[in-house]
Parts: sequence; structure tokens; C-alpha cells
Amino acid sequence: MTDYATRLHEAIRRKANPVCVGLDPRWSHLPAEFHVAGEPASGDPVQQAEAFREFCCRIIDAVAPLVPVVKPQAAFFEELGPPGCAALYEVIAHARAAGLLVICDAKRGDIGSTAEAYARGYLAGDDPQAAPWGADALTVNPYMGVDTLQPFVEVAQQRGAGIYVLVRTSNPGSSSFQNRTTDGQMLYESVAAVVESLALQTADGREFGPIGAVVGATYPEELTRLREAMPHVPLLVPGYGSQGGTSADVAGAFREDGLGAVVNSSRGIIFAHAREPYASQFGPEQWEQAVVAATREMIADLREHTPAANLPTADAR
Amino acid sequence: MTDYATRLHEAIRRKANPVCVGLDPRWSHLPAEFHVAGEPASGDPVQQAEAFREFCCRIIDAVAPLVPVVKPQAAFFEELGPPGCAALYEVIAHARAAGLLVICDAKRGDIGSTAEAYARGYLAGDDPQAAPWGADALTVNPYMGVDTLQPFVEVAQQRGAGIYVLVRTSNPGSSSFQNRTTDGQMLYESVAAVVESLALQTADGREFGPIGAVVGATYPEELTRLREAMPHVPLLVPGYGSQGGTSADVAGAFREDGLGAVVNSSRGIIFAHAREPYASQFGPEQWEQAVVAATREMIADLREHTPAANLPTADAR
Repeated sequence: MTDYATRLHEAIRRKANPVCVGLDPRWSHLPAEFHVAGEPASGDPVQQAEAFREFCCRIIDAVAPLVPVVKPQAAFFEELGPPGCAALYEVIAHARAAGLLVICDAKRGDIGSTAEAYARGYLAGDDPQAAPWGADALTVNPYMGVDTLQPFVEVAQQRGAGIYVLVRTSNPGSSSFQNRTTDGQMLYESVAAVVESLALQTADGREFGPIGAVVGATYPEELTRLREAMPHVPLLVPGYGSQGGTSADVAGAFREDGLGAVVNSSRGIIFAHAREPYASQFGPEQWEQAVVAATREMIADLREHTPAANLPTADAR
Repeated sequence: MTDYATRLHEAIRRKANPVCVGLDPRWSHLPAEFHVAGEPASGDPVQQAEAFREFCCRIIDAVAPLVPVVKPQAAFFEELGPPGCAALYEVIAHARAAGLLVICDAKRGDIGSTAEAYARGYLAGDDPQAAPWGADALTVNPYMGVDTLQPFVEVAQQRGAGIYVLVRTSNPGSSSFQNRTTDGQMLYESVAAVVESLALQTADGREFGPIGAVVGATYPEELTRLREAMPHVPLLVPGYGSQGGTSADVAGAFREDGLGAVVNSSRGIIFAHAREPYASQFGPEQWEQAVVAATREMIADLREHTPAANLPTADAR
């Protein structure tokens, strides 16, 4: 069994970039060929879930040769009820079969034995068959306390899976609780200290542990400080692109050698057909080509303006 | 459309008690008649999910004449993958058809438009058909910030649904972040102030808003202070019974008239057949009678030792 950070960094080296494609199938944004009547709450959820499944699987086919990781957002699938959950399952399985690592973005968290149920359900790790949802990693919410992270840490370590604990999120209002200061330390810094300690304890002498952190691209200075404060922690950086983060903003997330972080873009890639220059160049019919072009553009941007430049050049590209 | 707090308090008055039965189907605890080979990760998830569905639906049938609310714990269903999600859906539908209010305990939370997807998916409110999952209320995690609660608040208000924001949780390690003190105020007190403000804004002049709070029974003094600090907020109090909370511990959760809170018990009721005196009295075959007896015992305990004594006597009992 290979641990999560090793698998992640092998994948990043192999693809020569740290891009994570976020699979956020928003109903109103789907290309024309997927249009089905009605909003999620009023339409046929089976038909809608099938549209989400096909849309995401075709994105996976388009980006699998290019990037190391995808991140399905559970909320958009769950919004459709049980058929949406079945689609999420198939999307994760399709991505793993395509050789991608899968971070399931579900932001779970609960007390001891309940947290264990989430951990056992989602965290398959090295062997996709080891858990019903088959994910490599899961995002986790720390509010309930350090003891509620422990079951996720244990299952992750046992199975070669990873978790990403919310530390500093990318939303405009993230400071309302995360920036509350106690003895000169903000809440997110306390959480970061816990996460670093868990990562170090579970790293087994390797450079990175299986315990990661979510740190938004929208707070670049904090990102740089948090990279330094959590040397054993792989980062998941949302907020690039549509949320306003640039490659300069995320540069601080990486070590000198270009490892230590993946940068996520969701809308900017999966709905690239709806924005310029891709809207004019490809249009809604050739939306998969727009996805490929937007992915290549993000890869080039990160390789030009961040330490990802120091990753080896990929054979595959 | 009737708002959540009004519906909740009507149900509490009608049943003359504030008991919430937690539906936490743990595989290893099911009565013998549900035994199927294998652990969730290795057994047949379809067969296991069917066992969870039937177990929970029969609990619902047993407790529906007695209590106002049930609270399925999403984690135990999700642990089984998509078949577990389908079982959760059926359990919620069965409970609503039996006239119970349903709090889906899924502790969701995410940034703006993603939070909206969770809210629209879970919060059906007054009309069970208004959302795929059909729940009356949902538990929500505040770590990401006040702006991330807003979509839940809006959908709850539109649909006559409720949310319960995690404030002070019942686990032993809940203080690690929740008790960090800034300017003399603990984090959970800051969250409580936000929740009270959201409840007041959405109460439309009524005594309670649709925005509730989770406050554990395991911290009785804090529970009393939080009841006072959040006069417009319905409380959901976990931690009674198996987690160690007594009726004396939860007494502070109520107003004088017995309204303002529901107290949850999960294992103590649904697995009553495995503990004394019910194990000797009923045994695993008559597990449903053990469920009824344990529910009646909890009702009597709360009516004897808390302001729930001041609720009207139920016609139905």
C-alpha cells in the first residue's frame, strides 16, 4: 500500500503540473446538449443525474491525460437526491479508472464513531474497492474539535487515503470565525497547528503526511505563511480563476521544487465554453475542446508563474 | 406555508414531550433478525442498506405515536454508498408520512452557491415534495463563516424549513476550537450570537425563528447560558443517555413553558434491546417493544425533571 502523499506527488510529477479540476455540475451552466426541462427541484432527478454523470465523465475523459487530480463537489450531486448520489459514485469510479486521483469535496465532520462511518464510507485510498465511494481523499471540517478529526486520520493512514482539513477557506466571509484572534493566534492558525501536528505524526518519516489542508487562493499572504507553518501538509487551494485567485496568488502554496499543493479550478475549466476566448473559438457544441484548452492554459499559467515550473517535464505531454 | 418553529412547537405540544429519536443504524448493533454477513465495507451494500431501511422504518412505526421528531444520522447511511443514500431517502419519507418532523443530521456547510445546492436538496420544509431529500430541517456547520450560513437561512425561510447550526457540540474534545476565547468571548458564544441574530431576523415577529442551534447535553451550565443568550433559537440537544447527559443536565435547554428545545437520544432508544432492564424484559426478538419502553421512559424522565412538565398533556397518549 502506498501512502496518499506519495501517490499524489507521483501523479503531479507524472503530469508535470499541480492542477485539480473541480467537478461542480451546476444545472443552469451545462452545455446545450445536456439541457433537460426544469430546475433540479422540479425536473426528473433521474434524467438530471444522468446528465451530470455524462457531463462529468466526458470532462474526465478530456482532462485525464493532462492533470493529476479531480475534485467532485458532493453538494451538486446531493442536490438531486439519491439519483445524484449514484451519479457521484459513477463519476468517482470513472475518474479512478482513468488513472486520476479523486478528492471528494464533501466537507464532512462529526463526533467519534459517526466520523468513523464517514471515513470508512469515503476513504478508499490506494485500493478503490476499499470503501463504497472509492475516493482517494475527502475534505473535512474541524469545527467540532481535534477528537473528531482522529477517526479520519486513522482510516486515511490505514488505507493510503488522505484528508484535507478546512483551515482558511476562499469565501469572502471566511474571516468571521476563522480570523478570531486568541493570544495573538487566529483560529485558522490554531487549526493549522493541529493539522501540521497530525501530518507529522502520520508521515512515518516521509516529507509529507496524509493529512492535508484547504487554504484559499484568495488570501495569498496567508497562503505563504501557512505553507511555512505546515511543512508536512499537502495543500488543496481553491479559489483560482472564477473566484479571483491568480497564479501569482497561489505561488506561495508550493515548495521550491513545485510539490506540496494542488490548485483547483472548477467553473473556469468545466464551463470554459461559456467564456472568452473559448466561447468564440469553440462554442457550446465543442465544449470538450474548450475544457481541454482551458486546462492547458491553467497548466501553462501555473508552470510559468509558480514553483510548479520546477516540476520535471512530463513524458505524457 | 407554516414556518418551522411553529410546526415544531405544535408537534411538541401535540405529543406533550420534546423527545427526538436519533436514527443511527450502526451495523454491529442491529437486532439478530437483521444480521447479514460482513462489515459495511466488505458485505453487500444493497442488502445492508435494505436492513437499515427496514430497521429504521420499524422504529418510526414504533415511536410515531409517541414523539414529535426523528433525526436520521446521514453518516451511517452514506457509509454504505449509493444504496445507503437511497435507504436514507426512504427513511425520511416514511417518517414524514407517519406525521413526524425530520431533522436530517448531515452537518453540511460550504461556500455560497454550493451551500445553496445543499439547502435546496435537503430543506423541503412544510411540503415534503419541495426538495429531493424531503427533510424538515438540516444540521449545518458554521466554520466557513456567516456568509456560508445565509443560503441555508434563505431556503429555510422560503420553504418553512429549519436549520440547526453547530454551536457547542457534545463530544469530549469539542472545546479544542469552540472554547478559544477572544475578548472574553468563546468561539461558540460568537457563533451563538450570530445564530440568535439570524433567528431574530427571520422570526417575522414570532417567538422563535427557523434558525436553531446544536448544543450538547454534556455541558449543562453552558446549555443554560446559551438558552438565555439565544431566546429566538430552537435548540437541538444531543448527548442525553448513552453519551452521559441526564434530564437534570438538559433542563436548562427549555423555557418555563417547556418549549424551545428537543432532546435527542439515539443508541439509548434504538438499541434498547441490548441494555438493561430491556435486555432481560424483551430480548432481541422483541426489540420494537424495547424501543417503545425506552422512549416512554425518556418521555417520563424529561416530563418529571425538566420544564417539559409544563407542556399540555397529550390527547394521543
